[in-house]
Amino acid sequence: MMAKKETPQSRLRELGEELAKDVKKGKNPTIEFGLRSLSNVVYDEKSRVLNLGEKTQTRSFFNVGHAKKFLQTLEIAKISKTLLDVDKHASLRDVFYMAKRTIPQSSINIVDEQVESDKALEDLEMITEFSREQLNINANKMGSVAGEVTIEDAGDTINWAKLGSGGWSIPSNVENIKFKSMNAKYIIYMEKQAVWERLHEDKFWKKQNCIIVTSQGQTTRGIRRLLGRMSNEFKLPIYVLADNDPWGYYIYSVMKFGSISLAHMTDTLAIPNAKFLGVTTNDIEQYGLKKHLIKFKDVDFTRLKQISEYDWFKNNKGWQKEFKAMKQNGAKVEIQSLSSRGITFISDTYLPEKIKKKEFLD
Amino acid sequence: MMAKKETPQSRLRELGEELAKDVKKGKNPTIEFGLRSLSNVVYDEKSRVLNLGEKTQTRSFFNVGHAKKFLQTLEIAKISKTLLDVDKHASLRDVFYMAKRTIPQSSINIVDEQVESDKALEDLEMITEFSREQLNINANKMGSVAGEVTIEDAGDTINWAKLGSGGWSIPSNVENIKFKSMNAKYIIYMEKQAVWERLHEDKFWKKQNCIIVTSQGQTTRGIRRLLGRMSNEFKLPIYVLADNDPWGYYIYSVMKFGSISLAHMTDTLAIPNAKFLGVTTNDIEQYGLKKHLIKFKDVDFTRLKQISEYDWFKNNKGWQKEFKAMKQNGAKVEIQSLSSRGITFISDTYLPEKIKKKEFLD
Repeated sequence: MMAKKETPQSRLRELGEELAKDVKKGKNPTIEFGLRSLSNVVYDEKSRVLNLGEKTQTRSFFNVGHAKKFLQTLEIAKISKTLLDVDKHASLRDVFYMAKRTIPQSSINIVDEQVESDKALEDLEMITEFSREQLNINANKMGSVAGEVTIEDAGDTINWAKLGSGGWSIPSNVENIKFKSMNAKYIIYMEKQAVWERLHEDKFWKKQNCIIVTSQGQTTRGIRRLLGRMSNEFKLPIYVLADNDPWGYYIYSVMKFGSISLAHMTDTLAIPNAKFLGVTTNDIEQYGLKKHLIKFKDVDFTRLKQISEYDWFKNNKGWQKEFKAMKQNGAKVEIQSLSSRGITFISDTYLPEKIKKKEFLD
Repeated sequence: MMAKKETPQSRLRELGEELAKDVKKGKNPTIEFGLRSLSNVVYDEKSRVLNLGEKTQTRSFFNVGHAKKFLQTLEIAKISKTLLDVDKHASLRDVFYMAKRTIPQSSINIVDEQVESDKALEDLEMITEFSREQLNINANKMGSVAGEVTIEDAGDTINWAKLGSGGWSIPSNVENIKFKSMNAKYIIYMEKQAVWERLHEDKFWKKQNCIIVTSQGQTTRGIRRLLGRMSNEFKLPIYVLADNDPWGYYIYSVMKFGSISLAHMTDTLAIPNAKFLGVTTNDIEQYGLKKHLIKFKDVDFTRLKQISEYDWFKNNKGWQKEFKAMKQNGAKVEIQSLSSRGITFISDTYLPEKIKKKEFLD
């Protein structure tokens, strides 16, 4: 999505006015927007991210196959407009309950399952070219951050270096954060809260002049946007620290290249500056983690194969070498196995060494 | 656990010295501690919490059935002692990897699975009468808090009222937090982050002079300790806000009465000041949520029956009435269905009304 002069509110008003015009003219109210399906997802070799192609779809009111989806899309547009008007945010689940109402003079609900309101919202993102977050609708809140950064958010000035052992709790929507000062050379993102607490207790961010960010498991959109904004606005590299297994690689893949289901959001969600820091298969030998290998199950082999065949990996020599090494190993290791080398081994040795030697997979 | 003059470090040293004495005397090194099993868990009608009974168990080195567990317990004691000595914390997973080493001159690992090191640590809690957190070992970090409270933690002074839309990220270990100022009449704990973001955006804690706390799903020990400490040290009631279903009730049950597996920790983990605020079955009628009933599956009926038969619920008239009403309904509702009544209905109407009328289940 590109920078726009419009606001989400004016775009929604415009959408309503266009449809009202159709109605007044006696025309079938119709919306046209990009097709969101695998057949229209393209990997762009140059920019190295996933994007939507040129195919479009239409949705019109007088069409038996479209009528309900058309209505759902407009209902979500209405809810978003209301949220923007009163300057409030709602979660996906809230929006579902707001939309779950009976169509007057019928016994039919506008939506019956959350998947319907979620889909309608994704369509609305396509139609308006504004992200869900800009439409004041949030997903789950998750994760913590620390570093020498001062932000302004919701009227407060917050110094991420002065928040004790907890750090700042990352909100689900980070669009309105203003960065007031930024003193960091890079950002480390880790999938595990416990690893974050390790680095935080060791004041790693202070010693290494970086920012540390975590969620738990798969990265939420709020966190991806926060990382993306910092990476973009301050040209900071992002180093991803995950388990040495296909699922850890996938966390990196989604973060760097975008995902198929959110290909229409690549501009705001993909982080081309991301690099995979570890744990790599080579680290297992290098850092004495052989004892902690966990044997692959079938599902791990299958997932590894799938990932190694992704368009964005298949011509990448470094990654192909890594996939091959992992397959040969037939085993994975967890980040936290580094603890077997000593409490602060990860902060004192592993990370500084890897970063100094620039041992990244890109 | 009672207040002790000892520190965790001195207690661990003492434990080592006692065992060394046994060895020097040519005696079989033996540890005696409370039996942790259902047969030794008692519900105390007076204090209304779960406690351990009087039964004890011993663990000795020269006993084929005990030897490995004995060794594991001492290994964990050693790791904890090291952590305390260098003033660092580690997660349960870290401790597992630290303990997973080969016994010299053998091919046997001290532990092979995390469940072994976790169990040994629970035993060490019993033996030393210090909690895992006091032994510098943490579980997962999760959750956020906001309110007019100022704390000191890890050298920083943190005002929970000035942290933007994110709030303070609750660490896994809250034992060393110092409360510097506290301006709140009660605490609301909710299982859902999205509900917390709703209340936070509405500045509910400011308008109602309270503290809002959330995790995601089951409450972590860190959060239970934080709630417990605030409830204890400032005599604040805790209101639990969860889905109207057996799992929501169980969140309340664990928080208020303690849990079977952690009965030895009841003194530090149970929060007798907790009350269930909602969503109750009565609220469904009262607040027009009938449209959003989700039919029970067999597993829901089974869980409801189990919970209704707990010692701490079975003679409680209010709760028995509630269980009966829910069974009759044969359905549950989610907190977020309140959004169908309006974006800020929960903040403006539902919660203030319920709290004013003191509609709690206790």
